[in-house]
Amino acid sequence: MELERDAIERILATWPVARLATLAADGRPQLVPIAFAKSGGALWSPIDGKPKRGAELARVRNIRRDTRVCLLLDHYDPDWSQLWWLRIDGRAEIAAAAGPEALAAADALRAKYPAYASGVTPLFAGEPTLIRIAVEKRVGWRASAQGHVA
Amino acid sequence: MELERDAIERILATWPVARLATLAADGRPQLVPIAFAKSGGALWSPIDGKPKRGAELARVRNIRRDTRVCLLLDHYDPDWSQLWWLRIDGRAEIAAAAGPEALAAADALRAKYPAYASGVTPLFAGEPTLIRIAVEKRVGWRASAQGHVA
Repeated sequence: MELERDAIERILATWPVARLATLAADGRPQLVPIAFAKSGGALWSPIDGKPKRGAELARVRNIRRDTRVCLLLDHYDPDWSQLWWLRIDGRAEIAAAAGPEALAAADALRAKYPAYASGVTPLFAGEPTLIRIAVEKRVGWRASAQGHVA
Repeated sequence: MELERDAIERILATWPVARLATLAADGRPQLVPIAFAKSGGALWSPIDGKPKRGAELARVRNIRRDTRVCLLLDHYDPDWSQLWWLRIDGRAEIAAAAGPEALAAADALRAKYPAYASGVTPLFAGEPTLIRIAVEKRVGWRASAQGHVA
C-alpha cells in the first residue's frame, strides 16, 4: 500500500541513512549509502570527513556528468509486515557550502547527526562541498497498515 | 579501508537485505530493497508474494531491457566507526524457477528467510520467477578495523 504523506515527511526529516544511486560514465547505476538532511525543500548530503575510497568521489564525478539520481530510504525488519520504502527521483548538483541556503543545510546536518555537531567526524573534508538534491518524484510503499513507519 | 574477502563472503551469505538499482527506460537509476540469497555462485531474488505496486514489476521490465544492475549491502549504525558497505556490479536476468540451478536457489531462499520457509510470504507470486544476478565486481569499504562486519 501507499505511504501516507505525513509518513513520507517524517521519514525525510528523521531517517538517518539513504542509498544514493548515480550514473557512471558508461551509464551503469552506482550505489553508496549517504547521510543527508532536508533543508529548504531540498535534500543535502555533505562530502564529509569519513574515510573514503579514492581521491575525488565517484558520486561527485557521476553527478557532474549526469544529474539524475535516485535515493532509497527504507526499513528492513525480519517481520515483513513492518517493511516500508520511500524512493526519491531527483536531480543532484555539487554545491560549494557557501551562501545562506547551503549554510542552513550544513546546520541541518549538524542538528541531525551528533558526529557532525561534535566534530568527531568533520562535516566537510577539504573544500566544503554539498550534494544538493532537488526532489522530482516520491514513491512510497508499505507492507501493511499495521506497520510502524519511522 | 577495504573489506576483507572473508567479510565479503559472510555478508553475501547472511545479510538479509540488498538495495537493487536497475535502469529505467530513460536511463535513470531506479531503486528497490530486495531479499536475496547466494546459490551456485550467483545471487538470486524471487518475485515473491509480498504486496506489490503495479502489475509487472519495474525491476523486471528494467532488467529485460538492460541487464546492468548494482546492489548495495550495507550496515547503518549511529556509531560511524561501525559502518561498512559492499557494492556489487552485476548482470541480471529474469529466470523461470525451473531446472536444478533455480531450484537450488529457491531452497537457499527458503533456508535464509523463515517467512518463505513457512509460506507466510509465498516465495513466488504467480509464475515462479527469479532474478539471477551474475556478479562482475565487488567493492567493499569499512570505516575502521575495529568495526564488526556482519
